[in-house]
Formats: sequence, C-alpha cells, structure tokens
Amino acid sequence: MTFQQHLALAMAQNRSHLCIGLDPDLARLPAGISRDTAGIVAFNRAIIDATADLVCAYKPNSAFYEALGAPGWEALQRTIAAVPAHIPVILDAKRGDIGSTAQAYAQAAFDRLGAAALTLNPYLGGDALQPFLARADRGCFMLCRTSNAGGADLQAQRLANGEPLYLHVARLTATRWNANANCGLVVGATYPFELAQIRALCPELLILVPGVGAQGGDIAAVMAASGPRTIVSVSRTVLYADDSVDFAAAARRVASDLRQLIEGELAHGWHET
Amino acid sequence: MTFQQHLALAMAQNRSHLCIGLDPDLARLPAGISRDTAGIVAFNRAIIDATADLVCAYKPNSAFYEALGAPGWEALQRTIAAVPAHIPVILDAKRGDIGSTAQAYAQAAFDRLGAAALTLNPYLGGDALQPFLARADRGCFMLCRTSNAGGADLQAQRLANGEPLYLHVARLTATRWNANANCGLVVGATYPFELAQIRALCPELLILVPGVGAQGGDIAAVMAASGPRTIVSVSRTVLYADDSVDFAAAARRVASDLRQLIEGELAHGWHET
Repeated sequence: MTFQQHLALAMAQNRSHLCIGLDPDLARLPAGISRDTAGIVAFNRAIIDATADLVCAYKPNSAFYEALGAPGWEALQRTIAAVPAHIPVILDAKRGDIGSTAQAYAQAAFDRLGAAALTLNPYLGGDALQPFLARADRGCFMLCRTSNAGGADLQAQRLANGEPLYLHVARLTATRWNANANCGLVVGATYPFELAQIRALCPELLILVPGVGAQGGDIAAVMAASGPRTIVSVSRTVLYADDSVDFAAAARRVASDLRQLIEGELAHGWHET
Repeated sequence: MTFQQHLALAMAQNRSHLCIGLDPDLARLPAGISRDTAGIVAFNRAIIDATADLVCAYKPNSAFYEALGAPGWEALQRTIAAVPAHIPVILDAKRGDIGSTAQAYAQAAFDRLGAAALTLNPYLGGDALQPFLARADRGCFMLCRTSNAGGADLQAQRLANGEPLYLHVARLTATRWNANANCGLVVGATYPFELAQIRALCPELLILVPGVGAQGGDIAAVMAASGPRTIVSVSRTVLYADDSVDFAAAARRVASDLRQLIEGELAHGWHET
C-alpha cells in the first residue's frame, strides 16, 4: 500500500484531516509523567491511545528526540511503533543531502524508524531528492512556504519571471518530482494567500499545513484556501491542553473539536476553482 | 574559545586546510573491522589517530550514523568524543527548522553531541537560523552552492535583480546572519566559478568545500578560487584508500598528499583580488 492510499484510508475511516504533531518537551510534560525518555514514550502512547480514532496521521518532529541523544532516538523509534498500523506516521525531519548521504537519510527514516512519509528540504534540488522520491510507497513532503516570517528571506524572493521561489518549488514538485505520485508540500497555516496560490498551481498534491494553534494560523482560512487534500497538523495546542493527570482526556477533547472544525469547514466552505 | 579561534589554531598547528569527512559505510569497512557500530567507532578512531596531525577539522555526516538507528547515534557521539580537543568537529547535518524545533536541533548538535560547528540549510530564513547563530562560540555553515548538478534547481535560479539565489544566500550570510562572526558557507568543489564569485562577495567568511576526490572537484581550482579561508573536506578518498588491515596508514598517506597539495597551491597560487 502506498502512503497516499494509507492516508486516504485513515482520512475516510476517522473522517479526519487532523494530524497531531508528537513533539515532546520535557519541561511541559504533565503531572504523573516522568521527565525522561521513558516518560516521553509513555506520554506519546497516552496521546495516541486517546486520539487514534480522531486523526489521519501523526507527525513526530525528529529534533525533539535528537535533543535527548541516543535514548531520544530510541524513544522516537518506540513512538512510531506505538502508532496503530492503520494510521500513517509522517516523520518531520526536513532532511536534504546528496547522493549516498540522501540514501542513508532515506534508510534512517523509512527503514530504521519505519515512517510512512518524511518532510524534505528542497534547497539541494531534484537529484538530491531522488533517493527519497524513488521510494514509491513512501510520502515525500517538500518544504514550500514555511510558517515563519523569515521564510520570506529565500522563499518569497521573486525569480526573473516574477514568480516567488515557493511557487517554483511547488511547480517543480508537481511537474518533475512527482513521477511516483508520492509527493506533497508543506505550507504554513500563517500564509493563507500563499497557500491558495500554491493550491491553484497544484490541485492534486497533498498539502501538509502546520502552524495552526500556537503559531497563530486560522483553520477556516486554511481550509478555504486548500480544500480536502490537506493535512492540518497541530502539536502543542493538543499535547499540552492540560498539565494534570487528565492530560490525555483534555488532548482528546481539543483534538475532537479541531477535527469537527476542520470537517465543518470542508463540508460548507470548499468550492474547487 | 570560539569555533573560529579553535579552527585557526588547528590550521596553524597542523599547517593544514584539510578536513576529513568521517562518513562510515558498513559495506566498505576494511579488513579486521567488524561491520557494526562498534566497528565504525574503531574505524573512525584509527582514521583519527592516523591523521590528527594532518587536518584542521573532522566532519562526520549525521546521515550515515542515523541510518543505523539509536546505536548509530551513540557511535556518532563516541566518534566526536574521540577527536583530540585541539581539532574542531564540524557536524554535517544540514539542519533547518523553526522556533523551538531549531532550538532542539542546536541542543542536539552542540550540547548532546558536542560539535564545534554545524552545517545548516538556509531555506527557512534568518529567524529560523537564529537559535544556531545565537551560539556565538559555535560555527554555522550555510549551504550556499552544493556540489551536485541538481543544486541548480533552486540555487542557480536568478532573482529579479539578476543575481542567482546562491549569491543571495552568500550576501544574507555575510551581511545579516554573521553578527556573532560565527558563520561560514558550504560551496561544492565542483563549481569553481561560483566559488570564486562567492569568495569575491564574502572575502571574510570561511568556506567549507566538499566535493574534492570522489565527486570530481579539483584542488588547484578550489584554492585558486577561494584562498586561505577555505576548509577542503575529503571523505571517501581518504577513508577507503585501502581495504586491507593497513587502511589507516594508507589513509594517512592520502591525507598527507592532499594536505601538501592544498598548502602548495596556497603558497604559490593565491593572490587576493
């Protein structure tokens, strides 16, 4: 089964476009959870158990695990293994390197860690992406327009033809890098106009949209801009909804509300152009 | 001591601009070395012991360790710890993410692994780089023009002002991101014309140049283009000079020849413009 099929099934079964980012912060772990890598795995498991019928994907960000060294890497592996088989895991690692090095990163993410999809940085170009793209059963999400203001330093630079760099990346992804139909884009929720531009250029691609919640993105604007081929990723707002022993039930309530909001917008607000 | 001072001391003490990339490939480990993570650490130690008086830095690439999972991460940590204190370690991880995530990556590279410098991907822009740049004692090398042909997909795109994106990155690095005087650039040896352009724009920055040897870059062209503020990084040509039990002596011979070649070019060929 390809990542796209895997995701479509999870979306259908859970009637959800919500992805939960599993980004553990030792300093914010709730009461009753030990502040170590064992605690992180227990915390993630509790979040997963409480929300697995509400999401279309989980997205651990590699950085938070790497910050804890080899035991953190182990915790990442155990977290991915704790996700039920019918929910795909998107590893958010924003990797990019060339040749045999890119091959090693693909092996790390897809084979060692068992991720169904991976986020990638396109700065090194198409040949550098090839070892990832060649994995037809796995998903590859290219950073396109990130949610931070400074993203404009490169991404909003206009090329000689007047087009900003992020649209160039979107076009390369849709027309040159998607030969195995396994590509998507990452576009921050904080830039709904850019999101709509990108969607107009790439009607078929999945778009992974982080930046709702703590970063200030608005779900109605996101869904109006991007429509049903969208994965809305939320991390801190769900994970740290409550710092008591009831954190998992609180996370479930927030996730359920977010899912309902997203599905409501899709039901009423999306008109393909 | 800052990374810049650390590097300058190693360059002076060893009269060297050579950096050896510690990129272990299980399939290419020589005779007498076990094909596991313990073998990788033993191999790296032997290479380090045989060359520590010939180099200005070592550069492990994170991907090759990540491909081996948590034990690989442990091997990376032990490899960095095995480098003598007077030689700085540049972790080649090409990281880039935003906010608290970038903070976690900085912590992983600088605090957990103890790297003196790190390679970074600039696609996410200045605010995303800030957690790295803020570490005034550590070095930050921005990918500028990579050694692969496909690097042109983004990096060689001309902006509205006629300048290619790689020069825009070089200028941002020199003028906006280098407030702590801890930035450098990564430019592939395979593009000496671009390297000379970048050097002309950024006379003060360190430039880390991979791509000599297996990737086809030419040392004379590199040194003529970039001059003494250059770190020439070579991996496979040194590491796998010989697959017998004499691999370390062979690596030493190749590293010594490369160093002599580089220093010779600097002595005779560099005229600052």
